[in-house]
Amino acid sequence: MLEKYINAAKRAEKADLVLKNATFVDVFTGKIRKGDIAVAGEKIVGTGEYEGKEEVDCTGLTVLPSYIDGHVHIESSQLSPEEFASLIVPRGTTTIIADPHEITNVCGLAGCEYISKASQNVPLDVKLQLPSCVPATPFETSGAILNGKDIEKNIVKDYLFGLGEFMNYPGVVSADPDTVKKLEAAHAAGKIIDGHAPAVYGHDLNAYLCGGISTDHECVTGEEIEEKISKGVYVHIRHGSSTQNLGNAKFITKENMRRFILCTDDRHAADLKEKGHLDDALRRLVADGLDPVTAVTCATLNCAECYGLKWRGAIAPFYLADLVVVDNLKNFNAKYVFKNGKLVAKDGKPLFDTSKKYLPKSVLNTVRVKDLTAADFVLTLKGTKAKAMTILPGGVVTGCEIVEVESKNGDAVVEGTDLLKMAVVERHKLTGNIGKGLFKGYGFKGGAMGITIAHDSHNIILLGDDNESMAKAANHLKKIGGGMVIVDKNSGEVHSLTLDIGGLMSSRDAEGLQRDSRALIERAHAMGVKREFEAFMSLAFTSLAVIPKLKLLDTGLFDVEKFAFTDINA
Amino acid sequence: MLEKYINAAKRAEKADLVLKNATFVDVFTGKIRKGDIAVAGEKIVGTGEYEGKEEVDCTGLTVLPSYIDGHVHIESSQLSPEEFASLIVPRGTTTIIADPHEITNVCGLAGCEYISKASQNVPLDVKLQLPSCVPATPFETSGAILNGKDIEKNIVKDYLFGLGEFMNYPGVVSADPDTVKKLEAAHAAGKIIDGHAPAVYGHDLNAYLCGGISTDHECVTGEEIEEKISKGVYVHIRHGSSTQNLGNAKFITKENMRRFILCTDDRHAADLKEKGHLDDALRRLVADGLDPVTAVTCATLNCAECYGLKWRGAIAPFYLADLVVVDNLKNFNAKYVFKNGKLVAKDGKPLFDTSKKYLPKSVLNTVRVKDLTAADFVLTLKGTKAKAMTILPGGVVTGCEIVEVESKNGDAVVEGTDLLKMAVVERHKLTGNIGKGLFKGYGFKGGAMGITIAHDSHNIILLGDDNESMAKAANHLKKIGGGMVIVDKNSGEVHSLTLDIGGLMSSRDAEGLQRDSRALIERAHAMGVKREFEAFMSLAFTSLAVIPKLKLLDTGLFDVEKFAFTDINA
Repeated sequence: MLEKYINAAKRAEKADLVLKNATFVDVFTGKIRKGDIAVAGEKIVGTGEYEGKEEVDCTGLTVLPSYIDGHVHIESSQLSPEEFASLIVPRGTTTIIADPHEITNVCGLAGCEYISKASQNVPLDVKLQLPSCVPATPFETSGAILNGKDIEKNIVKDYLFGLGEFMNYPGVVSADPDTVKKLEAAHAAGKIIDGHAPAVYGHDLNAYLCGGISTDHECVTGEEIEEKISKGVYVHIRHGSSTQNLGNAKFITKENMRRFILCTDDRHAADLKEKGHLDDALRRLVADGLDPVTAVTCATLNCAECYGLKWRGAIAPFYLADLVVVDNLKNFNAKYVFKNGKLVAKDGKPLFDTSKKYLPKSVLNTVRVKDLTAADFVLTLKGTKAKAMTILPGGVVTGCEIVEVESKNGDAVVEGTDLLKMAVVERHKLTGNIGKGLFKGYGFKGGAMGITIAHDSHNIILLGDDNESMAKAANHLKKIGGGMVIVDKNSGEVHSLTLDIGGLMSSRDAEGLQRDSRALIERAHAMGVKREFEAFMSLAFTSLAVIPKLKLLDTGLFDVEKFAFTDINA
Repeated sequence: MLEKYINAAKRAEKADLVLKNATFVDVFTGKIRKGDIAVAGEKIVGTGEYEGKEEVDCTGLTVLPSYIDGHVHIESSQLSPEEFASLIVPRGTTTIIADPHEITNVCGLAGCEYISKASQNVPLDVKLQLPSCVPATPFETSGAILNGKDIEKNIVKDYLFGLGEFMNYPGVVSADPDTVKKLEAAHAAGKIIDGHAPAVYGHDLNAYLCGGISTDHECVTGEEIEEKISKGVYVHIRHGSSTQNLGNAKFITKENMRRFILCTDDRHAADLKEKGHLDDALRRLVADGLDPVTAVTCATLNCAECYGLKWRGAIAPFYLADLVVVDNLKNFNAKYVFKNGKLVAKDGKPLFDTSKKYLPKSVLNTVRVKDLTAADFVLTLKGTKAKAMTILPGGVVTGCEIVEVESKNGDAVVEGTDLLKMAVVERHKLTGNIGKGLFKGYGFKGGAMGITIAHDSHNIILLGDDNESMAKAANHLKKIGGGMVIVDKNSGEVHSLTLDIGGLMSSRDAEGLQRDSRALIERAHAMGVKREFEAFMSLAFTSLAVIPKLKLLDTGLFDVEKFAFTDINA
């Protein structure tokens, strides 16, 4: 191929494609330049004056290297990789560092393989991180376990690019042997390790970084950013749906700029569709006063350097012809997107096939439970005082409130109160585990609702005021292979949204899924869920035993602050 | 090892070494910081407050990441790798990107292997580039040929870090098949390719860079630097003995800074000993007004990033404990140098063994010629007008002058004129080739002088006014295995300096070699060589057929501007 590139570069042959009369961003010098951009095969071969077999007039438009998302969980979009690509590629992102943490917790390595293979059919380079913390905690039942030996065996595989965000920072800092084994395996394989160390400072941070960890997307304060960058960490500026730290950009200086990169981490399909992906981050960063070329550099070259993606993230000879043509450096509206030199999106629309060519059995029908009955949801308390979970503003942190509860026939009575019964039903290994608790202040009435997205082990989370409805909800989720469900006790109706891939993502098209998702959410609100909550997704964090305070696992009620199980009886 | 690092980082165990009360340069933020620097094993494990099993008080001193030389030919020092290390490591350089272009032209891959293995006995990381242009031109006889197939077969070897400076830029730009094969082989092996493209611009530069070439150390103008950096090239700031472009630093901006790196390329032992290595470059750059932290960053982190040397070039947890402690950021006098966490030099003196533990036969006795006699140096001209080589100021570019020459018995007469006979005797393959010419204005009288350093094929270059002495000089060089020689016709004495390694480098200690080298140079001047010339090293470029104008090869007189052989008869 080199011969072809060289001949096109020196104009001995016509380039395959020329972006004529372009204004383009030079991330190496921070300048904006003008000229034609010539492409041969999948590479940029030169800038200057060129003629092409195909030419795209870019007069009045600005060409950028297309964006690289430094850290993302595709699963958070509830979309397949193909549909996810159909939303982000037209926005200008053509490379992502993806950590399939959720689906791997459900399906094990089959989850990684699925994301890898499915994404090969779309014009998006998915650099796949092997999730490092499966399960996230040892207290619950997940669909898979990847211990040090498993990591060692698998991280060497070519399709795995690195080791995913190392959330278990206590494990690193305490030099836990299995944790060390994971880290050493990644180093031995020459693969990058992503970090996740919120508010870790000083000697603990030194220890964490001695695990050979390269990045952090959890920084939020200037002090934290300054310390982490000075200690060699690449800091992500995150534009997720709920987790946002675009404000990090105000700590960029000309001296430390190369250590900032952009990511989205968790971003819902609705946001991707309506607001955008990294294009939206760039828009906001520039609106907030960041120099546009700096913003673009963080979204391109910096990320390429961080992840060792050579010949990517810039407009220069021999660089990958991954380009986005935008209206201007204020709005970042993508008119054309090129991946490997081919036009793959125009005016915000994908020009590629998103049919699901690869959808293996290993990621389908992942809701494995015995048939449940009303009796499974009987909640027997010792007295009338019990701990109830509440959701605090923001929707991820939960509280613990001591409530008064009556019982009848050995079963807590929640009807006519502000309480709901809560259950986490293990759905991976037929253990029969059902963790039970109480939930206060959600507003839902008259049946049950449930979801198979339950960070990070993704068991079934149920809420309800009727045992029969709760059983029906769980059984329905099993039947549809996972998703979200509402059971109306009065009408007997069951309404649901199917997330057939691991119970996390849908194999449907993005648009149809969105429409039905909105309808189900509206139904939940109609049945009383307060508008201040995200009807289903707020529930998905009630089982996440690394975020305070009271959480419910399939194995029981858990006090995160004490990092131990706790009795429901107060 | 991770466990050890982590435990030392969090102070669960004492660090092996602590640099106490250090002021240190943070290349990530461009700031100067204070604190202790803790080291465990070969890694920095943290900055902050630490206690160590061993502590070095750095009060009043400044700690820097030790330097990385981005491009150097060790052979230019005429020293073995061990002795070379003994001069540069105490100056603060602990990593070099070395291109053994000279010894490989003499000894082939055995030359590469020698440099690699010999340098393993000293505390200097030698990242070895496989020379890309052996021979430098197809017109002469070198000791080895590495064609595309040879590169393909060898570049995959672990001990080879990359492909050395691609001097054959016409070959790249014309997409010559064997050249393309070399480049593609390096890419396939995932190895970096260094560049060398003086004054190549525009579409030609695009074509050259489409070879996948990453660096250039030949830039000298602001325009050239701006274009090359904007096209993705890392630009070296060079501090060689004769080739200098420290002035490149004035084109550094905060936006393009990360693309500048330091190198020395060719630096003589005397300069290394008396002036220094990259420390001297830093001293001069700062004296010329460059911000000291920027200068240090170019010598450390930037070079590490360019060459993909992760965890090197900064003072941060998990980075290699390669450190230099200097008096200040003005003088850069190195008080201590640490390599992999061990003190390896103090107050400018090496603390390591430089004995030659590895000196294979394959790099010794490389002067292979038949015994020569006076008859071999008879120079028969057709008439009285002939072309004579002159050396132009600077010592590398040569001129061509038409001179009047008498002949006697079919042999040119140079005695009593300002002319000398010149000969290039092939010394690798017993071809018997002797290129003959005339040399004007050197000043030498009364015998012959010779050298086996003759860029880039390193045949024997001889000058003399007496055929007998010239034969004696060549035969003596054969006897000693290469080096430099002076034959005094009157006294019959032969004086020489042995360069036993490939005829290029000495296996002796740096100091003794320097002393004897100075003495021999003085003797040359005493025999008439004008002081404006470097008595021997100026000769070494008279056979380099890529630099104008008239050169003498073993195969004959060569006109570089016409890129063709030329007749001596004018």
